[in-house]
Amino acid sequence: MATTIQPYLDKLAKLDFSKMYNEDFLLTWEKSTDELQALYAVADALRNLRERNISTRLFESGLAVSLFRDNSTRTRFSFASGSNLLGLQLMDLDEGKSQIAHGETVRETATMISFMADVIGIRDDKFIGKGDAYMREVSASVKQAFEDGVLDHRPTLVSLQSDMDHPTQSTADILYLINEFGGLENLRGKKVAVTWAYSPSYGKPLSCPQSLITLLPRFGMDVTLAHPEGYDLMPELVDVAGKFAAESGATFKKTYNMAEAFEGADIVIPKSWAPYAAMEKRTNLYAAGDDAGIDALEKELLAQNATHKDWCCTTDLMAKTAHGMDTIYMHPLPADINGVSCEHGEVENEVFDYHRDGLYKEASYKPYAIAAMIFLQKAKDPIATLKALEQGDTPRWFQA
Amino acid sequence: MATTIQPYLDKLAKLDFSKMYNEDFLLTWEKSTDELQALYAVADALRNLRERNISTRLFESGLAVSLFRDNSTRTRFSFASGSNLLGLQLMDLDEGKSQIAHGETVRETATMISFMADVIGIRDDKFIGKGDAYMREVSASVKQAFEDGVLDHRPTLVSLQSDMDHPTQSTADILYLINEFGGLENLRGKKVAVTWAYSPSYGKPLSCPQSLITLLPRFGMDVTLAHPEGYDLMPELVDVAGKFAAESGATFKKTYNMAEAFEGADIVIPKSWAPYAAMEKRTNLYAAGDDAGIDALEKELLAQNATHKDWCCTTDLMAKTAHGMDTIYMHPLPADINGVSCEHGEVENEVFDYHRDGLYKEASYKPYAIAAMIFLQKAKDPIATLKALEQGDTPRWFQA
Amino acid sequence: MATTIQPYLDKLAKLDFSKMYNEDFLLTWEKSTDELQALYAVADALRNLRERNISTRLFESGLAVSLFRDNSTRTRFSFASGSNLLGLQLMDLDEGKSQIAHGETVRETATMISFMADVIGIRDDKFIGKGDAYMREVSASVKQAFEDGVLDHRPTLVSLQSDMDHPTQSTADILYLINEFGGLENLRGKKVAVTWAYSPSYGKPLSCPQSLITLLPRFGMDVTLAHPEGYDLMPELVDVAGKFAAESGATFKKTYNMAEAFEGADIVIPKSWAPYAAMEKRTNLYAAGDDAGIDALEKELLAQNATHKDWCCTTDLMAKTAHGMDTIYMHPLPADINGVSCEHGEVENEVFDYHRDGLYKEASYKPYAIAAMIFLQKAKDPIATLKALEQGDTPRWFQA
Repeated sequence: MATTIQPYLDKLAKLDFSKMYNEDFLLTWEKSTDELQALYAVADALRNLRERNISTRLFESGLAVSLFRDNSTRTRFSFASGSNLLGLQLMDLDEGKSQIAHGETVRETATMISFMADVIGIRDDKFIGKGDAYMREVSASVKQAFEDGVLDHRPTLVSLQSDMDHPTQSTADILYLINEFGGLENLRGKKVAVTWAYSPSYGKPLSCPQSLITLLPRFGMDVTLAHPEGYDLMPELVDVAGKFAAESGATFKKTYNMAEAFEGADIVIPKSWAPYAAMEKRTNLYAAGDDAGIDALEKELLAQNATHKDWCCTTDLMAKTAHGMDTIYMHPLPADINGVSCEHGEVENEVFDYHRDGLYKEASYKPYAIAAMIFLQKAKDPIATLKALEQGDTPRWFQA
Repeated sequence: MATTIQPYLDKLAKLDFSKMYNEDFLLTWEKSTDELQALYAVADALRNLRERNISTRLFESGLAVSLFRDNSTRTRFSFASGSNLLGLQLMDLDEGKSQIAHGETVRETATMISFMADVIGIRDDKFIGKGDAYMREVSASVKQAFEDGVLDHRPTLVSLQSDMDHPTQSTADILYLINEFGGLENLRGKKVAVTWAYSPSYGKPLSCPQSLITLLPRFGMDVTLAHPEGYDLMPELVDVAGKFAAESGATFKKTYNMAEAFEGADIVIPKSWAPYAAMEKRTNLYAAGDDAGIDALEKELLAQNATHKDWCCTTDLMAKTAHGMDTIYMHPLPADINGVSCEHGEVENEVFDYHRDGLYKEASYKPYAIAAMIFLQKAKDPIATLKALEQGDTPRWFQA
Repeated sequence: MATTIQPYLDKLAKLDFSKMYNEDFLLTWEKSTDELQALYAVADALRNLRERNISTRLFESGLAVSLFRDNSTRTRFSFASGSNLLGLQLMDLDEGKSQIAHGETVRETATMISFMADVIGIRDDKFIGKGDAYMREVSASVKQAFEDGVLDHRPTLVSLQSDMDHPTQSTADILYLINEFGGLENLRGKKVAVTWAYSPSYGKPLSCPQSLITLLPRFGMDVTLAHPEGYDLMPELVDVAGKFAAESGATFKKTYNMAEAFEGADIVIPKSWAPYAAMEKRTNLYAAGDDAGIDALEKELLAQNATHKDWCCTTDLMAKTAHGMDTIYMHPLPADINGVSCEHGEVENEVFDYHRDGLYKEASYKPYAIAAMIFLQKAKDPIATLKALEQGDTPRWFQA
């Protein structure tokens, strides 16, 4: 462990990330590569300070409001951890306790929970075309309330997963890779397979693979996206991936063949997701309250899934990669593991178990990813603030 | 924004509020006008300090226990915010998780949750004759436990709404008016319409209008209470309103005519509530477990409500007030808005929307109202403590 | 109240408790008597500091994760209080929100919630052979994650009640006795009746009486265990009780006669529990998903219980004790009180009411018991750390 965060501060000094202050973090593709690099540097710096037992509290009081429209232990704990690290108290807006709709109701509720909220974290990934839109509605509401003098500050938003992007997960993923490969610059030219995999369950979000294909090519990684025919992602985000690859001189390829994507890969990320078209249909069925239609669609999709049980991350497939079993295998967890959590799933237990430590390390970056997003939104001068924290040297955990 | 809280401290120096230390805050009419003025000054001072980024933590550790016998996002967040501002951690006593009864069980549970609780906030507004009584039972229990040496301190109570009063709401309301009119003294002679309004729902609490008619006349405001025949409030509280008006030289009038109340008003506060007699009946039906009776009563009351759809805050009615649309319109939120949250409701959208900013500002005072109640209960010398906080100048939100 | 914690520090200086740092607290019988004495001294010291308004925060940030596999207001609040006293924020892993199974799932979830967790408190007392085993599984998981470099520290565990032991309760119990009798050394030779009592409910945990019979004899207390035939505790723990009694020169006796146990007792602790054999059977029925079998067993056990309604702590029985009604009566609460919470129960209201203050005081030690367990796990040099806290003299509750 480095004994100072100076290298991170030196890196930050060369980047332009001035627009992150007082702004939301919803989609990585709306951020510049400088801003993303600043995010990674701040996340690593915060981790370094915590591991050296230096407190990184920015706040003596203040709330971090979480709004989960989907159950989630891991993301919930990551958000609680990241905001607690900065001194904020978690306050959960439980939808069971307080129904939230759209339109004026969103505007009003968003304002009512924000009088002392410094950050709002939202997870809303279920319905195509809805999640990111909802976050923007909340963001616009609290911005308006700030401008109208109702709020004395502007609470900023962190997307904890939308229908489009999963920025805290992809940030954790790339932080893991940066630390595994010894620097962001070392990721250039690495070959990554982002592939679909079979799962006995249905309707897993598209935002995980979308967050990866839109992010990794920006730093020169050669991404191959593989899935069975019909399991398309949102087409505009596939376009974004291609555009970023072109800009950075990396390649972005698509295939309907899992083995082809694994061929020579340095990193494999196989995970199930639902077909885009089906998810759009499902969103419309829900909107129409068509329960019979929803049931029928679910049956149809499960049957369709079942024809692709061969899309599994096996030891045979791993053998085709650049480093065999030592090729990095990633997953946001929990995974569907053959013979462990299901009969047939996304990955063979032998592969999963071999990579368990790495998978857990991958996950360990998420609280820091979230803390760094908040930090950059809340510290007017992040470099000076990090330096002051290091010099202040207040122990997080007091030992006499 | 004032650059010092000295004016508030000067105001406090002239008031006698010594009895608020270590006491509960349940009903405003049990407090002297000096005490209420101290409350408003402390709330404004805490808001000023926070807006100037000065920490107002009184506590390094300690719990603020909330007990909601009714779901409530807004009040829940206000209580969390107000107590967090002072350094207390919210701990919710969820009734779903731990059933609470009366008698010895109240005494025992109240003690068991209080070993490290500095304040207890209770919302119990559903049943006439029960809410305030329950709070007093909890208060007596923890006082007893303190006197018996079981607790090393006395946790104080804040009513977050009872069957009788809603002191945190009425405090927020008057703080809003004080700041709109530039001082409490400027409220004298202002004409206020506290009126019933139609709602398609049933059984809304009486404590909102009761909290207003018993408070506003104390500061010289001329209040007219309007409602359809049969929608009486608790008679003893109407008497309290009249008594306070007489003492301050203000007028307190009753009418069965909404337009009459709006005539020449400076402030209008139209909101639905249930008839007192029906609520008493309902409480007895619940106590008797008479489900059929409860259903029948609900139908009867909804039908009765439906005969009063003309009790709506319209632009036509606003035209009768002293300042037309610019007359202050208030509501504790959420309101039943015509064509927005229901077909016919308490207010026309044109009126509501015109006053949206004001309504949100009104709500923004609630966390400070709660924080000030706790502050006055917990600071032995509030003036010296506020001064020390201002001079200490610890940033709430650290920026290097 | 002592004006310094020096006497506790002097006591600690003579004890060897160096192995408690960075370790779990699951079963008292795994701890040496030196370690237990250190626990009591630290608990009393923390209480003294808090009562003298001195902050005992060790943490600027960090989570205390609670995992209740059983509803519990009292233990929940005790854990929240104890961890808040040290500066940790409670984060509840609600099983309703995130199902937890065994095996790899435990390992993964335990790791995912622990990235910023300093302590994990678990209550899992329902199923014989499962609770303690589950805690060890969680403990092994986070230890492994620490050793693998996934966690930057090792979160330690506190058992908030298992199938075997209830260490936070028995610690609160003995702290109460220590303070009542003026020192641990004064407990030697005191006669304690740990007896079964009738309850109209079914399946109460065995860990309460087990925690008492395994702890009290270690400090020279003469324990008599009484219960109806068939209501055995876990045999290996009865053996542990006998072994400890032999070591300390105390007596440990068993009887099927409640009155015999009360004869000449200085302390009586009558409480219901379920027969060990039945609980084992029940665990197997649950594992097999045999709902009909579970229902049948419940009926059988309630019928069996009903034949022992005479096992009640009456004034008549109290008269047989060493000090009549002034003999100490203890209960972890809530108790089944005749004519109050049930028709026939564990204790007559006259006895319960006479001892109410003492019972509440007994409970008041639990937050300190928990805080002391965490403190000894987290302070490398507890004596120096306590001394530094006392000298730092930071007010917990600021008063200017």
